[in-house]
Amino acid sequence: MPFGYNGKILRVDLSNKEISVDEPDEHFYRTYGGGSCLGAYYLLKELEPAVDPLSPENLLIFTGSVVTGAPAPGFSRSAIVSKSPLTGAIGESQAGGFFGSELKFAGYDAIVVKGKAEKPVYLSIRDGEVEIKEAAHLWGETTGETQAIIREELADERIVVTVIGQAGENLVRYACVLNNLKSAYGRMGMGAVMGSKNLKAVAVRGHKEVEMKDKDTVLRLAKRFSTNFKAESPDNDGLNDLGTAQYVMGQNEDGQLPTRNFQTGTMEGAENLYGQKMKETILVGRDGCYACPVRCKRVVKAADPFPVDPSYGGPEYETLAMLGSSCGVDDLVAVCKANELCNKYGLDTISTGGSIAFAMECYENGIITKEDTQGVELRFGNAKAMLEMVEKITRREGIGDILAEGVKRAAEKFGAGAEKFAIHVKGQEFPAHMPRAKGQLVLSYALSPLGADHLVSEHDPAFTPGAPSFFSDRVKPLGIQEPLEMRSIDYKKVRRFLYFQNVFSLLDTLTICFFTFAPVRYFTFDELVELVNAITDWQTSLWELLKLGERRIAMFRAFNVREGFTSEDDWLPERMFEPIRTGPREGQKVDKEELKKAIKLYYEMAGWDADGVPTKGKLAELDLFWIADELAKHGKFER
Amino acid sequence: MPFGYNGKILRVDLSNKEISVDEPDEHFYRTYGGGSCLGAYYLLKELEPAVDPLSPENLLIFTGSVVTGAPAPGFSRSAIVSKSPLTGAIGESQAGGFFGSELKFAGYDAIVVKGKAEKPVYLSIRDGEVEIKEAAHLWGETTGETQAIIREELADERIVVTVIGQAGENLVRYACVLNNLKSAYGRMGMGAVMGSKNLKAVAVRGHKEVEMKDKDTVLRLAKRFSTNFKAESPDNDGLNDLGTAQYVMGQNEDGQLPTRNFQTGTMEGAENLYGQKMKETILVGRDGCYACPVRCKRVVKAADPFPVDPSYGGPEYETLAMLGSSCGVDDLVAVCKANELCNKYGLDTISTGGSIAFAMECYENGIITKEDTQGVELRFGNAKAMLEMVEKITRREGIGDILAEGVKRAAEKFGAGAEKFAIHVKGQEFPAHMPRAKGQLVLSYALSPLGADHLVSEHDPAFTPGAPSFFSDRVKPLGIQEPLEMRSIDYKKVRRFLYFQNVFSLLDTLTICFFTFAPVRYFTFDELVELVNAITDWQTSLWELLKLGERRIAMFRAFNVREGFTSEDDWLPERMFEPIRTGPREGQKVDKEELKKAIKLYYEMAGWDADGVPTKGKLAELDLFWIADELAKHGKFER
Repeated sequence: MPFGYNGKILRVDLSNKEISVDEPDEHFYRTYGGGSCLGAYYLLKELEPAVDPLSPENLLIFTGSVVTGAPAPGFSRSAIVSKSPLTGAIGESQAGGFFGSELKFAGYDAIVVKGKAEKPVYLSIRDGEVEIKEAAHLWGETTGETQAIIREELADERIVVTVIGQAGENLVRYACVLNNLKSAYGRMGMGAVMGSKNLKAVAVRGHKEVEMKDKDTVLRLAKRFSTNFKAESPDNDGLNDLGTAQYVMGQNEDGQLPTRNFQTGTMEGAENLYGQKMKETILVGRDGCYACPVRCKRVVKAADPFPVDPSYGGPEYETLAMLGSSCGVDDLVAVCKANELCNKYGLDTISTGGSIAFAMECYENGIITKEDTQGVELRFGNAKAMLEMVEKITRREGIGDILAEGVKRAAEKFGAGAEKFAIHVKGQEFPAHMPRAKGQLVLSYALSPLGADHLVSEHDPAFTPGAPSFFSDRVKPLGIQEPLEMRSIDYKKVRRFLYFQNVFSLLDTLTICFFTFAPVRYFTFDELVELVNAITDWQTSLWELLKLGERRIAMFRAFNVREGFTSEDDWLPERMFEPIRTGPREGQKVDKEELKKAIKLYYEMAGWDADGVPTKGKLAELDLFWIADELAKHGKFER
Repeated sequence: MPFGYNGKILRVDLSNKEISVDEPDEHFYRTYGGGSCLGAYYLLKELEPAVDPLSPENLLIFTGSVVTGAPAPGFSRSAIVSKSPLTGAIGESQAGGFFGSELKFAGYDAIVVKGKAEKPVYLSIRDGEVEIKEAAHLWGETTGETQAIIREELADERIVVTVIGQAGENLVRYACVLNNLKSAYGRMGMGAVMGSKNLKAVAVRGHKEVEMKDKDTVLRLAKRFSTNFKAESPDNDGLNDLGTAQYVMGQNEDGQLPTRNFQTGTMEGAENLYGQKMKETILVGRDGCYACPVRCKRVVKAADPFPVDPSYGGPEYETLAMLGSSCGVDDLVAVCKANELCNKYGLDTISTGGSIAFAMECYENGIITKEDTQGVELRFGNAKAMLEMVEKITRREGIGDILAEGVKRAAEKFGAGAEKFAIHVKGQEFPAHMPRAKGQLVLSYALSPLGADHLVSEHDPAFTPGAPSFFSDRVKPLGIQEPLEMRSIDYKKVRRFLYFQNVFSLLDTLTICFFTFAPVRYFTFDELVELVNAITDWQTSLWELLKLGERRIAMFRAFNVREGFTSEDDWLPERMFEPIRTGPREGQKVDKEELKKAIKLYYEMAGWDADGVPTKGKLAELDLFWIADELAKHGKFER
């Protein structure tokens, strides 16, 4: 029999304990690929609109892709996809580590979970043997304890456990999910969805070899990466040496380090949060993902002023900025402690930091008082207060119960004046990058169906001083022939944004790591196509693959349209139109009229109508005519 | 110095005899490539709207592409691009043979001609030495005589001469241009534009080797083609054996052979026009293009009942159908004679046949009489009358003066009732393919900016019984995963049409032969990309190349919009909505409502507004924002 990609998708209904398997054909896999594109397929097909994301009806999809599990750097990742309790829109979050590849070794591309278990359970998947197991004894436990108990129960020290902590159980709207305690599916509240289903964990172990058409090619390219990544990609070398914490100082020096809830982009004391400082003081190890030599994850250990448990790794750049500088905190150990707590309780460090910084600014402006904070002096720079808030949010205690809802809902609760400090798009808190400094981020944050998301498209060049420029000849196969001004959002920038959005969306669909591929950091486009072909034998092309990326965006958009989102939701918080207050970028702001023009142009480029709805023609072009029918059922395309 | 594609474009102003050279940069060549995409660039930049195509202001562009002249099959072609005197829209025509490659050997990608010589001239280009030479003595001569005299004058028996005959001099609106007497730039009246400029010929000889980054790869793929084309492509083997005349019987048996001005698709006696018959009777040779082993061109010789001169080759399928079956003529030698005359005088055999068949139907229906035809019994099947008309049209004598204007204008002259026999789109007569039998042709004819054109997109499968199916795995890299019903014009067909339109438009832009590439007949998409890279060192991708194809269509459309064309011009002649009268496809017709829906969907897929105007966003996406500015100057995008 000729080689052909034959995947399996596990279906689990927790309400009635039914387990089954989908075996889609090649057309399906070439059309939806994996990741959140595959996830969006199930959500659009099987979820009615307007369902409460925390109700049993919501679907929860754990998914790798057709290439996941191949022994090449960047191919171990997986996504969790669901309707987000934070935004009410399509939700996804990705993580590296070992879950995606392990699920593949067990024989599955994805798990589609629906319903709600009567009592807490966890899923055990061992080489195709799938069990729904009781987890009452795990409810209330930390992620670490849960993982340890499950490994003991299943008598398998190496089983990969994807788990929620107390934050997920307590339905914190930005609760996260972790695998191996260090790889977080951070954003959009996937942990709360798990919690709402009484699903404490998914444990996976497999021994099946991933089938590949041409293993030699995969191994050849993987080996080249492993041998040469330091020489060929200085940025990846930096990731190994300092982790994403390498970016702190560049961001700060360029006035792009979110500080005090995005008031400004520079903080005195930022050097205390820098990767170099971490390396010199508390770094005790580096960790990584299946088949990747970069090992960009940090492992830190400290005793003073806070004990930090190395089992939970160490902070990323995002965490250092959002729980550090954005809260005005420059105490590295405090931020590492906050990181440990977030991973232990299962909280997204970005939204947690964003929510705390928001509350701090409200406090400093008298919108909330010490009474509201149960006595906490919630000021920028107060590291202890920041840590206290992490605890309160997890337990939904006092003000924590409000902050657990995210800044959008919290601002509504806090009332007059709070809204202007709520730095979010579509309900999702900003990650640690400053649109006022980078045109592509303006477009990413305003236009992503996921809300404020920094991994939508490439960042503008000069991401950090000294980092490799993205204006390399390697982007020319995309049809991009010239460098552009960093802050511009003119038609050329919109085009570049759109094209790179398709690239990033493709990588999300294939659940491939951005650090190995995007934007062509290490592997070239040719090599990406070569790898996909070597694994699947599809003889695909960059054309077909980029259409896969474009398809995912259109599906996301269609999902949101069905949920009632409109073009009015494609906008930035007011602070972005106010000048940065200090530092090298003092005075820089986003221009509203330019943004309006850019959004209109983007809709046209993307094939969306003036309301931001994908046209019937665009959906048909993407082989998604069934979604046009679906939108028509909900009143679209009546003209 | 690293290898880089460095092309030159020759500029000739015949009014003031100025000669200069453009040397565009890489960005230009990657954006416009060559062929009619490059031609459209000059037309949009330098030609004002509403200019009479036969006035000195019109531009006339002879152009290969960045890959032309490489020693690989299919890479010798060139295009002539101009505002068409037949349609008033963008005009282009392509030919094989030796002109495109020879121009490259002389150092140029293209020649952009403007103005009008005071007296007849011809251009001589010898290894970069460019001269405007007197041609008063050539005016009134046939193509063959002109070529012979120029070769003698320049003392070069092998110089490639591209030339018009008396039809071009007399401004017949569908006069063609020929190189080496057998390769016709047939359609859209490029010969009339040459005539209007007093430009009788362009003679080119060069000895420069085409620069290639990786000659070995080009030679390797070319050699594989040359060694294996018979084994790997039965269709190309048939092209060698029988020429395009191989298609006559398949078309007839399937009810698709245009007969008596498209009244039906089957003709008794069609076997007399078949390639096999030609081979067994009058075929004396096969001819071809630079570096191609297929040799699909015919050479025929006859004495009785008409003497046929082999210097002018032999008829293609199009000619056999349009001057044969569509005129009701089944006399092979008569059609070969008509072919000889058309090549000798420089007439497009398709529009000539279409105009004569139109007149025949008018005659049979009493719309015109023997008085109007100067005594010719202009009935279907009258071979002598058909030949007589070729002479009259060339000399614009009597009724020939009216038919020389094309069927659209002739119908206006003939008056009431004639319009329904004028089988054209946008003023261009139908080629020999039946939209009522093939959905893709419905879309091609209705939507092409060039008017009725059969080389816009793939034809539906079962082009002829026994020909290789286009539903091969080779189309999957385009994102097309399933076979479709032949006559359908539903959303799936529109999508397939659009995607293949980009492929064909790419081949037109690169002036590559459809018979070697489209749709992936012999070379694969991967090999096409490999060849372009081996020649240019661009490290391009199928994505970038298909965008080049899409860009050409958008530029064509923008040109037409500027000239006042609207969505109303995207339609078919009434006959297409009437049932085919006899044969295996009796009763088949195009559905008007379905066509309206398909056109609306196509506009949306293509990124055009409801009026068929490319949106500002689509133009920006294609790196054509300057055209949006140009259209805005002409009142578009005011909303």
